[in-house]
Amino acid sequence: MPSTPLGICYLFRGLSASQMQRLTAIAKETKLQKGQQLLQEGQEAEDLHVLKEGAVELFMKAEGDFEIPVAILRKPGDYFGTSALIAPHVYTLSARCVEDGTSLLMKRVDLQKVIREDHEFGCTIMRNLAQHLFARLKEARQELKIHFKTLLKFMYS
Amino acid sequence: MPSTPLGICYLFRGLSASQMQRLTAIAKETKLQKGQQLLQEGQEAEDLHVLKEGAVELFMKAEGDFEIPVAILRKPGDYFGTSALIAPHVYTLSARCVEDGTSLLMKRVDLQKVIREDHEFGCTIMRNLAQHLFARLKEARQELKIHFKTLLKFMYS
Repeated sequence: MPSTPLGICYLFRGLSASQMQRLTAIAKETKLQKGQQLLQEGQEAEDLHVLKEGAVELFMKAEGDFEIPVAILRKPGDYFGTSALIAPHVYTLSARCVEDGTSLLMKRVDLQKVIREDHEFGCTIMRNLAQHLFARLKEARQELKIHFKTLLKFMYS
Repeated sequence: MPSTPLGICYLFRGLSASQMQRLTAIAKETKLQKGQQLLQEGQEAEDLHVLKEGAVELFMKAEGDFEIPVAILRKPGDYFGTSALIAPHVYTLSARCVEDGTSLLMKRVDLQKVIREDHEFGCTIMRNLAQHLFARLKEARQELKIHFKTLLKFMYS
């Protein structure tokens, strides 16, 4: 099922057909409405979402309720709520719908059950997740490099 | 074996005694000499090191051969060479020994073989790795927040 949102989601690459079926069975289609707060930084991470339609922005809070944008997701198969897969299961970003759509929502408890019962499934998902986080870490470091250069420019200009 | 470097390494938390034995069998003690370049950013990632003694600094290259420090590892059980576990297996940082010591070196091919043959082992390592990368991503974002504030200060002061 490569053309479904779950089938093209980075996290689930390499799963077998029967593993994808098991995943599909725990995913529930959910409506997203523009302006709706979907996840809140600092709260317990219960849900992993895979985007089907619409757009979602991720951001983090700085001092004084200032919001720092982190990403806008709009491709089917994009996912958010990573903390549902990683202890201590607390969201590190907030997510808000910016364009009406739908997502496939998986509960953490259901995902954990599948991972516990099928280690191959767990290994594949965790490897994909590690790969994705590593790529994001590299991006963040690149950004730090740029800030570093900009700061030097400000300091010595 | 919680007191050996492999036993206290974050990556291997939760492995069973027999899984730890299997790991120990592929780890080779290696001397590290002060000033020695251990890993090079951009090169193929063949080795994962777990520090036993000594100190290692991680850094990345900016323009003009400028080095940006990322971390100094000096605790037994600290590890470096993460890219040996993550495709496309290219080092994203350089590592240099800054204090004589030893590390336990594991070859990527040997690790991959163990992971292929024991999915539970693979799932545990990849989950630990994802958790570690996630923590590092959060740190990088915090740093970006600070740079963001510093930049604002420069721009509006």
